[in-house]
Amino acid sequence: MTLGVVILAAGLGKRMCSKLPKVLHPLAGKPLLAHVLDATNSLAAERCVVVFGHGGAQVQTALAGYDCVWVEQAQQQGTGHAVMQAMPALADVDRVLVLYGDVPLITPATLRRLITVSANTALGVLTAELCNPTGYGRIVRNHAGRVLRIVEQRDATLAEQEISEVNTGFLVADRAQLADWLARIKNDNAQSEFYLTDVIALAAQDGVVIASAQPSSLAEVTGVNDRVQLAELERVYQHDAAENLMRSGVSLADPARFDLRGTLHADSDVSLDINVIIEGEVRLATGVRVGPNCVLKNCSIGANTEIFANCVIEGAEVGANARIGPFARLRPAAQLADDTHVGNFVEIKKTTLGRGSKANHLSYLGDAEIGAGVNIGAGTITCNYDGVNKSLTQIGDAAFIGSNTALVAPVKVGAGATIGAGSVISRDAPAQQLTLTRSRQTTIPSWQRPQKKPVK
Amino acid sequence: MTLGVVILAAGLGKRMCSKLPKVLHPLAGKPLLAHVLDATNSLAAERCVVVFGHGGAQVQTALAGYDCVWVEQAQQQGTGHAVMQAMPALADVDRVLVLYGDVPLITPATLRRLITVSANTALGVLTAELCNPTGYGRIVRNHAGRVLRIVEQRDATLAEQEISEVNTGFLVADRAQLADWLARIKNDNAQSEFYLTDVIALAAQDGVVIASAQPSSLAEVTGVNDRVQLAELERVYQHDAAENLMRSGVSLADPARFDLRGTLHADSDVSLDINVIIEGEVRLATGVRVGPNCVLKNCSIGANTEIFANCVIEGAEVGANARIGPFARLRPAAQLADDTHVGNFVEIKKTTLGRGSKANHLSYLGDAEIGAGVNIGAGTITCNYDGVNKSLTQIGDAAFIGSNTALVAPVKVGAGATIGAGSVISRDAPAQQLTLTRSRQTTIPSWQRPQKKPVK
Amino acid sequence: MTLGVVILAAGLGKRMCSKLPKVLHPLAGKPLLAHVLDATNSLAAERCVVVFGHGGAQVQTALAGYDCVWVEQAQQQGTGHAVMQAMPALADVDRVLVLYGDVPLITPATLRRLITVSANTALGVLTAELCNPTGYGRIVRNHAGRVLRIVEQRDATLAEQEISEVNTGFLVADRAQLADWLARIKNDNAQSEFYLTDVIALAAQDGVVIASAQPSSLAEVTGVNDRVQLAELERVYQHDAAENLMRSGVSLADPARFDLRGTLHADSDVSLDINVIIEGEVRLATGVRVGPNCVLKNCSIGANTEIFANCVIEGAEVGANARIGPFARLRPAAQLADDTHVGNFVEIKKTTLGRGSKANHLSYLGDAEIGAGVNIGAGTITCNYDGVNKSLTQIGDAAFIGSNTALVAPVKVGAGATIGAGSVISRDAPAQQLTLTRSRQTTIPSWQRPQKKPVK
Repeated sequence: MTLGVVILAAGLGKRMCSKLPKVLHPLAGKPLLAHVLDATNSLAAERCVVVFGHGGAQVQTALAGYDCVWVEQAQQQGTGHAVMQAMPALADVDRVLVLYGDVPLITPATLRRLITVSANTALGVLTAELCNPTGYGRIVRNHAGRVLRIVEQRDATLAEQEISEVNTGFLVADRAQLADWLARIKNDNAQSEFYLTDVIALAAQDGVVIASAQPSSLAEVTGVNDRVQLAELERVYQHDAAENLMRSGVSLADPARFDLRGTLHADSDVSLDINVIIEGEVRLATGVRVGPNCVLKNCSIGANTEIFANCVIEGAEVGANARIGPFARLRPAAQLADDTHVGNFVEIKKTTLGRGSKANHLSYLGDAEIGAGVNIGAGTITCNYDGVNKSLTQIGDAAFIGSNTALVAPVKVGAGATIGAGSVISRDAPAQQLTLTRSRQTTIPSWQRPQKKPVK
Repeated sequence: MTLGVVILAAGLGKRMCSKLPKVLHPLAGKPLLAHVLDATNSLAAERCVVVFGHGGAQVQTALAGYDCVWVEQAQQQGTGHAVMQAMPALADVDRVLVLYGDVPLITPATLRRLITVSANTALGVLTAELCNPTGYGRIVRNHAGRVLRIVEQRDATLAEQEISEVNTGFLVADRAQLADWLARIKNDNAQSEFYLTDVIALAAQDGVVIASAQPSSLAEVTGVNDRVQLAELERVYQHDAAENLMRSGVSLADPARFDLRGTLHADSDVSLDINVIIEGEVRLATGVRVGPNCVLKNCSIGANTEIFANCVIEGAEVGANARIGPFARLRPAAQLADDTHVGNFVEIKKTTLGRGSKANHLSYLGDAEIGAGVNIGAGTITCNYDGVNKSLTQIGDAAFIGSNTALVAPVKVGAGATIGAGSVISRDAPAQQLTLTRSRQTTIPSWQRPQKKPVK
Repeated sequence: MTLGVVILAAGLGKRMCSKLPKVLHPLAGKPLLAHVLDATNSLAAERCVVVFGHGGAQVQTALAGYDCVWVEQAQQQGTGHAVMQAMPALADVDRVLVLYGDVPLITPATLRRLITVSANTALGVLTAELCNPTGYGRIVRNHAGRVLRIVEQRDATLAEQEISEVNTGFLVADRAQLADWLARIKNDNAQSEFYLTDVIALAAQDGVVIASAQPSSLAEVTGVNDRVQLAELERVYQHDAAENLMRSGVSLADPARFDLRGTLHADSDVSLDINVIIEGEVRLATGVRVGPNCVLKNCSIGANTEIFANCVIEGAEVGANARIGPFARLRPAAQLADDTHVGNFVEIKKTTLGRGSKANHLSYLGDAEIGAGVNIGAGTITCNYDGVNKSLTQIGDAAFIGSNTALVAPVKVGAGATIGAGSVISRDAPAQQLTLTRSRQTTIPSWQRPQKKPVK
C-alpha cells in the first residue's frame, strides 16, 4: 500500500507576533516544519505534500532541500479545506497521513504505530489522554472500546465532558474514502471553515471501524501557537536529547543547561560542562572534555582533547590531546594537529597548526600554514589582509615567533627560524636563523611626564 | 477620596546575614523596597510614607530618587507601632494603604482591586488561599462569607485550623478609623509588640464590614526573610518577565536562563539565546539576535544586528545590520554605525565607528572618531592615555590601519590613508597615502638559540 | 564499641558506558567513592575497608590520599560475597557498617542515627519510604512496628506489595554475628550471587531485634547506575550546596545555575551572579561580587573586590577593592594587591601586581614583579619565554608602560619610568625617565593601494 503524507503548514501564526512564518520558527536550531519533514522521512512515503499559505515563498526557500510537493492554500478555509488542496497531488497513493507543520515533535515510531493499527480499515486517528481535556474534541467510544465519534467541547454532554481522551488531529485514511468525506464536509459553522475533524463523524456514519493509536508522550502532539509554547517544546526536545546522550555514555554537568541544535557524534567518555551548545554536525572523540559556556559548531575534536571554558569553535578540526582555551576562537578551516595548544584570546582561521605547536596568548592567525613544534609568541598577528586580498603566511617546523610580532603576508618563516619580539616581518625569514626588526632603545633623560590638563 | 500609602521597611532582616538592610537587597537588579515604591506609583496616592528603622540613612540614600516621606521607627515595637509612626504624616488623607518593603512582587492591579472592593467600608484586607496555612492567621467568615475576624494559629480551634484562607498583612483602611483602632491595640503578648493585625479584630468588634480581595498569585504576597526566599522570588519575577516578553514576540532559547534587571524594549522578532542578561534600559530593534552568555546594559541595538556569543555591552549604541562579537566588549559611549563589524577580543570605549567600518580582532579603541569604511587591523591600539590625560584619535573615511599599530593620541589619520603594519603613529598621517614606521628587517646568521639553563 | 566500615566499590557500572570505573565518576568534582569516604570520616571508625573489583588499580591511585584498606573482590559474586572479602580485615572491630561506593550522598548524620538506634542489638538497617516501591525489597513489620523480614518484589503478596518502606542496603551489624550470617547465606538464585540482604532474614530467624533508621532525604540512599542518575544526584548536591550558602549569607542570582566543586569559604555579603563555578578551595572575603559565567578555582579574593563577567581565575590571590574583568584570566601565582584593576583580554600568570596598579586591556603578564601604582598600557606583553627558559620582568612603582610594548625578559623597568608606546624593551630602562624604541614615521606619497587580484 502506497502512502502519501500531507503536512498542513498554511497557518498564519498570529500569536507568534512575527514576520517569520510560524512553521519556520526554529526549534533546536531547525524550522518546525523541518522536524515534521524529517519525521516523515523514515515512513517510505510515496509522496509528501506541504500545504502552504502565509509566507509560502519564504517557506519553500527555507526548506528547498526537502523532496516534497508544494501546494498553496490561497485562502485559509480550515484544515479540511487545506487537505482538499493536497488531494490532487496524491491521486496515485492508497493512503493519506495528515501531519501538522506546527506540531514538530511527532515521532516516526508513533506514526508507524498509527499506520499499522489502521492497516485494515479506512480511518485511523491519533488520540491522547489529557489531565484537563477542556476545549478539545473528546473521543466517544462504545462499551467495546470502538470509536463512535468526536464530540466538540461546545456540544459535549456533562458525561462526555468527563472523557479525557481527545482528538489530536493526526489521522491516516484511505485516499479514496478521504476524498469522498472531504467532499461531504460543510462549512456551516461560526468561522465558515471546513474542519478535517468532521471526516471522523462521516466515517463513523458510514460504518467505518475507526482505528486509534496514542503517542508516547503528549509533547509529540503538542502544537506551537506562541513563543511560550515554542520554548516549552524546545525544552522537551533538549531534555530528551540530553537524556539520550547521557544514556549513550556522555556526561553532562547539568542536562538542563545543554543545547543540541544539530547532531552530536560522541565517542565514549565525552564530558560536557554547563551551558555547552552544539550546533550543526559535531564529532567528539573519546575522552574529549568541553568546558563551560562553549559553543561548538560543525567541528571535529580528537581524542582526549580538552576544551576549556568560554571557547567558540566553528568549522574547525582539532586533533587528539590538544588543549584549547579558555577564551579561544577557532573559525572555519582552522586545522589543529595533535598535541597543539591554543590559549586565551587567540583567534585562528583558515590555518593549519602542526603537531605540538602552540599559540597560547592573544594572537590572530589567519590564512597560515604553520608547521610542527612551532611556538607562536603572545600578540602575534598574521597580517593576511591588505584591504582587498588575503595572503598566505607560511611558518616552518620548530620556528619560534617572538611576542608582538606582525607577519606581513605573503611571507615565509623558515624551519627552525627565530623571530625577535616586536618585529614586523615583511620579507621571508631564513631557516635556523634569527630575524628581527628592531630600533635602538633610547632613553630621554630630560623628559618630563605630561601634566594633567585642565578640563575644558 | 485621597489615598496615603504606608510602606513598612524597618525590619532588621537578621536571617539575611547581611550588613545591607533587607529592603535594599536587590531583586531583578532593584532594591526590594523600590519594587514596592514602583507598585504604588500608579495608584495616584496623595502621599507615600516609608517607615524605616535599621540602616535608615543607607535606605534613604539608595532610594533618594523616590518622592516619599521618611519616618523613623526608632524601636521595633511591631507592625502596628510602625503604622502609628506614619499616621502623623498622613493626617490629610482619607484612606491608608499598608504595604511591606520586603514583599516586593505586589502588583498595582491587586492593590487597585483591594482599594475598589473596600470603597464603601472602613477596612479591606488582602487574603490568600494556602495549601498549607499552618502558622498563618486564618480568615474566619460567617455563612454569608463576611469576614468576622482573624484567628492566629495558636488560638485556632481544630475547625479553624482547617481554614486555608489567611491574612496577608496588606490592608486598606479609613484613616480616622485606623487611627482610632491603632490607639486601641495592645502589646500584651509574648513579644510585647503592637500587631497591625489586631486592627481587624477591633474593626469587626466595631461592626465594620470587612472587605477582602485576593492577589493573582501567591508570589505577590510572599515576603523575603532570607536569601533562599529572595532567590525564589527572583525566579518568579524572571519567569513572569520571560513569559511576557515571549508573548510580545521575543524568542527566548530558554526562559529559565534569562535575566531581566531593568527594562527591555524589544521590537518584533528579537531572539535571545541562553543566559542573556539585560540590565538598565535596553532597546533592541526588529530582528536583533543576541548570542549566548551576553550581558547588555543601557544600550540600544539597531535592526537585524547580530551579537554573537559572550559579548559585554554597556552604554553603547549600535546601528542596524552590524555584527558584534563573539567576545566583544562595548563600553559607554561606543557608537557604532550601521553595517559595522566588531570582532573577537575587541574593546571599544567612547568611540564612534562609521558606517561599514570593521575592527575584527584584538583591538582597543578608546576616545576615537573613526569614519566610514575604515578597516582597523588586528592588534590596533589607540594610545589614548598618557598617564594623566585622555586624548583623541581621529581616523578618516576609508582609512586602512595595518595590524599591530599603535596610534598615539592626539593624532589624525587622513581619509583613505593606509598605515603600515606594526607602526607607531605619533604624528598625523596624511590622507590617501601610506604612512608607517618600520625598522629594517635583519637576519643574524651566526645566532644560536638559547640553551636550557639549569634550574637553580 | 569499635566500628569498621565496609564500602562496596567493586561494581562494574556497565550502564555508565565508560572506561572509568563507576565509583571514580565525579559528582561535584569529586569521585563518587570519595564522597562516601568523606562521609565516614566523622564516624571515628577504627578502620575503613574498600572492596574493589573492576579497575581496582585506577581506583586505588585516584583515592590514594584516603586512609583505607583495599580488598579485592576478584569475582563479582554479589554484595554478600563482597562483604565476606572485607571481614578478615575487620577481625578486631565490634561492629561493621556497610556502605556503597556508588551511593554518594549518604550523610554522617544519617549514619550516626543508624548506628545509635542499633546500639543495643546485633543488626540495624536503613530503610526508606518510596512513593513507588515497585521492585524494591519491602520491610515487613509486625503490629508493634518491629522489623520481621525483607520480602523481595517477586515474593511479595499483594498486601506486601502495598508496603512503601523499602530496604536501602545500608546496614550496621555486630561483627561476629555478621560473620556468622554471611557464612550461612546461599547463592541458590538466578544470578548465583550471595546477597547481603539475606543477612536480614537470618537475623530475624535468629530472633534478633532489627533496629531501623531513615535517611533525611531519598537522595542519600539513591545509587548511581547510569549518567542520567549521576546528573540527577549532581543537581541534588548542587541544590543543597546553594541553599546552604544562601542561608549562610551568600546571594545567588539563580541557585539552579551555580556549581560548587570543592569548598567555598565566603564571608558576609558575597554575591554570585548566574553560572558561577567554584572549584577546589576558594575564599571570598566580605562584599565580593562575582559576575556571570565566572570560573573560580583555588583562589582567594579580597574584600569588596568585584569580578566582572566571564573571568577565569585559577590559583590566584586578589586583594581588596580590586576590579577584575570582564574577560580576565588569572592563572596560578597571579598575586594582585589591593585596588588593582585588571581588564578585558588580560592574562596574568606568576606575577605580582602592586597596590593600585592597572592592566586594563589586552595584555599578557607572565613571570613579572610589578610595583604599586603602575599603569600597564593596552597590548603590553612580557616576553618571558625564549623557547627554553622563562625569565623575569621587573617593573618599579609608578612606572607607565606605553601601549603595545614588548618587555623582553629578563629586564627591569625602573620606578617612575615611562616606556614609549610600541617599544621593544630588551635592556633595563632607568627610573623616572622615558625609554623607547621608535623608528621614524615616514609617508610614502606615491604609494598605490593594492588592487584586487583575480581569484585563481
